[in-house]
Amino acid sequence: MRVRASVVIGLVLFAPHAHAQSWAPPADSQRCPSKWGAADQRGAGNHMKPETVLRATRLIRTGEVFELGRVLRTDMPFSPGRRFEMEVKRTNMNAGSNRRGSNEEIVFSEIGQVGTQFDGFTHQTIGDSLYNCVKVADVSTRGGFTKLGIEHVGTLMTRGVLIDVAALKGVSMLPDTYPITVEDLQGALQRQKLTLQPGDAVIINTGWGRLWDTDGARYLRTNPGLTTAAAEWLAKQDPMLIGIDNGPVGVTPDPDPNLSNPVHQIALVVNGIHLLENLKLDELAGKQVYEFALIVQPLKIQGATGSTVAPTAVR
Amino acid sequence: MRVRASVVIGLVLFAPHAHAQSWAPPADSQRCPSKWGAADQRGAGNHMKPETVLRATRLIRTGEVFELGRVLRTDMPFSPGRRFEMEVKRTNMNAGSNRRGSNEEIVFSEIGQVGTQFDGFTHQTIGDSLYNCVKVADVSTRGGFTKLGIEHVGTLMTRGVLIDVAALKGVSMLPDTYPITVEDLQGALQRQKLTLQPGDAVIINTGWGRLWDTDGARYLRTNPGLTTAAAEWLAKQDPMLIGIDNGPVGVTPDPDPNLSNPVHQIALVVNGIHLLENLKLDELAGKQVYEFALIVQPLKIQGATGSTVAPTAVR
Amino acid sequence: MRVRASVVIGLVLFAPHAHAQSWAPPADSQRCPSKWGAADQRGAGNHMKPETVLRATRLIRTGEVFELGRVLRTDMPFSPGRRFEMEVKRTNMNAGSNRRGSNEEIVFSEIGQVGTQFDGFTHQTIGDSLYNCVKVADVSTRGGFTKLGIEHVGTLMTRGVLIDVAALKGVSMLPDTYPITVEDLQGALQRQKLTLQPGDAVIINTGWGRLWDTDGARYLRTNPGLTTAAAEWLAKQDPMLIGIDNGPVGVTPDPDPNLSNPVHQIALVVNGIHLLENLKLDELAGKQVYEFALIVQPLKIQGATGSTVAPTAVR
Amino acid sequence: MRVRASVVIGLVLFAPHAHAQSWAPPADSQRCPSKWGAADQRGAGNHMKPETVLRATRLIRTGEVFELGRVLRTDMPFSPGRRFEMEVKRTNMNAGSNRRGSNEEIVFSEIGQVGTQFDGFTHQTIGDSLYNCVKVADVSTRGGFTKLGIEHVGTLMTRGVLIDVAALKGVSMLPDTYPITVEDLQGALQRQKLTLQPGDAVIINTGWGRLWDTDGARYLRTNPGLTTAAAEWLAKQDPMLIGIDNGPVGVTPDPDPNLSNPVHQIALVVNGIHLLENLKLDELAGKQVYEFALIVQPLKIQGATGSTVAPTAVR
Repeated sequence: MRVRASVVIGLVLFAPHAHAQSWAPPADSQRCPSKWGAADQRGAGNHMKPETVLRATRLIRTGEVFELGRVLRTDMPFSPGRRFEMEVKRTNMNAGSNRRGSNEEIVFSEIGQVGTQFDGFTHQTIGDSLYNCVKVADVSTRGGFTKLGIEHVGTLMTRGVLIDVAALKGVSMLPDTYPITVEDLQGALQRQKLTLQPGDAVIINTGWGRLWDTDGARYLRTNPGLTTAAAEWLAKQDPMLIGIDNGPVGVTPDPDPNLSNPVHQIALVVNGIHLLENLKLDELAGKQVYEFALIVQPLKIQGATGSTVAPTAVR
Repeated sequence: MRVRASVVIGLVLFAPHAHAQSWAPPADSQRCPSKWGAADQRGAGNHMKPETVLRATRLIRTGEVFELGRVLRTDMPFSPGRRFEMEVKRTNMNAGSNRRGSNEEIVFSEIGQVGTQFDGFTHQTIGDSLYNCVKVADVSTRGGFTKLGIEHVGTLMTRGVLIDVAALKGVSMLPDTYPITVEDLQGALQRQKLTLQPGDAVIINTGWGRLWDTDGARYLRTNPGLTTAAAEWLAKQDPMLIGIDNGPVGVTPDPDPNLSNPVHQIALVVNGIHLLENLKLDELAGKQVYEFALIVQPLKIQGATGSTVAPTAVR
Repeated sequence: MRVRASVVIGLVLFAPHAHAQSWAPPADSQRCPSKWGAADQRGAGNHMKPETVLRATRLIRTGEVFELGRVLRTDMPFSPGRRFEMEVKRTNMNAGSNRRGSNEEIVFSEIGQVGTQFDGFTHQTIGDSLYNCVKVADVSTRGGFTKLGIEHVGTLMTRGVLIDVAALKGVSMLPDTYPITVEDLQGALQRQKLTLQPGDAVIINTGWGRLWDTDGARYLRTNPGLTTAAAEWLAKQDPMLIGIDNGPVGVTPDPDPNLSNPVHQIALVVNGIHLLENLKLDELAGKQVYEFALIVQPLKIQGATGSTVAPTAVR
Repeated sequence: MRVRASVVIGLVLFAPHAHAQSWAPPADSQRCPSKWGAADQRGAGNHMKPETVLRATRLIRTGEVFELGRVLRTDMPFSPGRRFEMEVKRTNMNAGSNRRGSNEEIVFSEIGQVGTQFDGFTHQTIGDSLYNCVKVADVSTRGGFTKLGIEHVGTLMTRGVLIDVAALKGVSMLPDTYPITVEDLQGALQRQKLTLQPGDAVIINTGWGRLWDTDGARYLRTNPGLTTAAAEWLAKQDPMLIGIDNGPVGVTPDPDPNLSNPVHQIALVVNGIHLLENLKLDELAGKQVYEFALIVQPLKIQGATGSTVAPTAVR
């Protein structure tokens, strides 16, 4: 009893401090215009330049290819309210003297936000404000966004760096709500003898991806992921994109129960950094491939918030 | 009358010859098992090996990137019975103390067969038989194909060669039903001082793509494209894939009115060569970029007949 | 300068008069709770009682049936942003010794708001407020509304009265933006020697429906319809529902350019009266069937804003 | 051993007899043209005549209405491969000085074959042959059937007779695979002191519907239903339609393991009798309402195989 009481007192004493550490979105004036300019629609995608491509190309030494994309299945794990429905359209046409038949399929899906996915800047807001302080109401139509759509991104090809936090901790998978800290990121890089460079694709291995096929419910319930501090530190390293083997990127739930996925805001809204989610990283981590050319081709869906993708690491 | 009669006679005299030139699908025994093995599901995609990637990598010298994919729009040209419907799902969640909002979109589409698209082996048949003589009835379910699905392809990265037939003919766009012959392909390669190698991505410029945004109805009505002879000659060059700036690849309509897009069968069913359609080739042709690394990442849609894609040429 | 000033003065002088004629939504306190009670979800649908059914039944004397519903076609006229896409799912199952096959179809549509349609109370708002001052934010989810959904309506069977305004004016179709006045409604009823009773289904013939199959573009561009005064007069007659042979019910555009379809608000939000739109009334009007049993069975789509329907008049 | 052997012998001896009792589809010549004529598309729907409506009207004595349709929910029981997906489209338009907002919803569904549903004649085949020996290949397009579509049916209003087989057996729900025989139907009618008349809507209560909301998996797995003999006896009574509180109508699985839902063929293909499935009959059975006016308004979906419906019994 006495012990418990003192713990409570301790918590009360530390509460103001803990609260002070939590995160709040920056004011519009602090984040806009973005460093890429007031009219910019591409954010850190602007790192994509011939030099960046050449830097990545120089990392291709064996020609080995790693598929980082998940198979799109109707029964894969989905965030609430999303689905991937597919229906084959068979035609027994037997057309012409060459007896040609043709099949296709109808898909009904939140195609920008299912499977291995690439998040665009219309996906997330702070209040009603997007990246570069574009107002949702000014650019949204029923059929898409008139600005900041995913079609502006284009193919990204850059140096990829895998930060294997699970390996740093000596586990195959981080615990369910493990908060990845700045120290974890720095420690993993040190262990891997690598430093980040501006324009990198930073890919974080938590091991959580091994639940994708085996326990989708747990995969979705919580996840190890970045703290707001770690996300802000990463943003300062000036990457082209941040990728991870879970959906939310940030640790879920956030340690501050008042926050709703702040890491999504830090990356997409505050810093204009695209996210690459639900990556399949087991092969890369298993073979300790820490540096590679990362290639991803988001679909050019006009006005969309993102794109399901099939990215690749090549070394 | 007399003149007309002689024309008829002429037609009769030449008819056997004309008929002999036309195309018929080979018997199953002639095309199966495929040269990649009876259980193969990847066809010419098997050219994708570390050496192939390295060969492509060596062509990247300036880091310049060319986007070959079309923007996916609800009003782009579609083959009959296809569409791309998109509806934004806005949420004014204002969640948490960080006031997070989230948007996504629903898409309803024949997603494997719209826009710039990559054709898989379940897309086309001869009678009821697919590539490697797999029977449609044995592998089709309402939710996808259990064999030969597009998810087996993976990222392709190989030497790309643009064969600019329009430039050979000194036009920006070939005429509406122009049949591209073996001589045209050979002449264009000679003019460009290039030879094909096994495993290449062969990309053919007809100039037809300039109608995509300006006259979709004409884009779809007919098109210049390969003759069956040209397609068979190309197949013999053993490419990884064949790409073009129209939908059907073959000349449409085929000169033989009894044939229904035989070039699709020659590539996909007979030879197991993937097709890449509705490419945007104006920049590549305009800058005379004839040799490059071609990269394409088909979506891994389980059991699908194809995938809309956003391919890239890098030099 | 002097001239311009006088114009301004003129506007100011006339403004009160012009303003007095136009319509503004009543304050919440004036319309809530509705006369059917603060918890009510059915509005004028509450007129549906055994006596109402018996009153309608007594009007069935010949057993003649009139179909008032349009055929649902992919190419029928749609309000912007709506569509009706259908794809047959054929199966050549040949199942069992009885060789059974089965076909079905996939439909992708704003099914509550296409074709001949029955509008529910979640369809329209004044600001963020629905019928009975229910707030949209309190009852909307991505998958439907938790209150006021169309599933609460049920079959409606009541005395139907056709008010043939076109016939009153001696035309087969009212002009493009003809505003139907209170006098028109009263005149037409007098001509038809009928009076309205509480609980009636009031059906208005403008003749506009003849454009449905012949000129969909014009059908949608403008339409003859009710003025706000006529709508308010009708609401005072206490009908179960109001039906018409166009989409907006109100005259379009409204004579006051500042108003956006106020008749929809008067019926659905202010008075809780369901609307029945895009009716096929040619046979009813042609045979001068002015009094009948009106039967409509809205689909019980959980939480939906409306339902496409196939209503019937029986006499 | 000896006993088992004799059993085997017995089975062998009786096998021909057992086989003779089972059902086989009639030859085309035996069922075509249908009794309604070679060009007929409406089958027993042709019973719908003014006299039929008047006969039904005379049964309306109290004005009491019974809703027989299920609420359409995304989580209701579905036959394999079907679904009902709905997404609200909210618009915070605040349009005009009247601040009008408008909501609607997108639905993606096999809308003809979900919930309480009305089966049309293109739904089922014997081999490739539909009702009236129409060949599937001759009338099917990707967007619908050019003949026998559900749009030809129209509102049906006729005398409804509930045959309560569960009540006859003294149970609230028949056992899982209970085969309803001719004797059961005749016994129930005798118990209820009713006889069938040509043109009736025959509605069968098995009690199975009580699983709809409580155990969807069991609802779908098997069900009590008609034997082929009972279905053929019913067809001879010349009804307008047959309705029931399960999906398949026939007992599932059929006692003959070689047969695939033969009752669907007997009704739809052989006899041109529409089916009404997944009815909600608890109130009707509970109040012993055995005779009533049955009203159903199938949606006029052009070329569709059926329609979800919200039918009504009125007495």
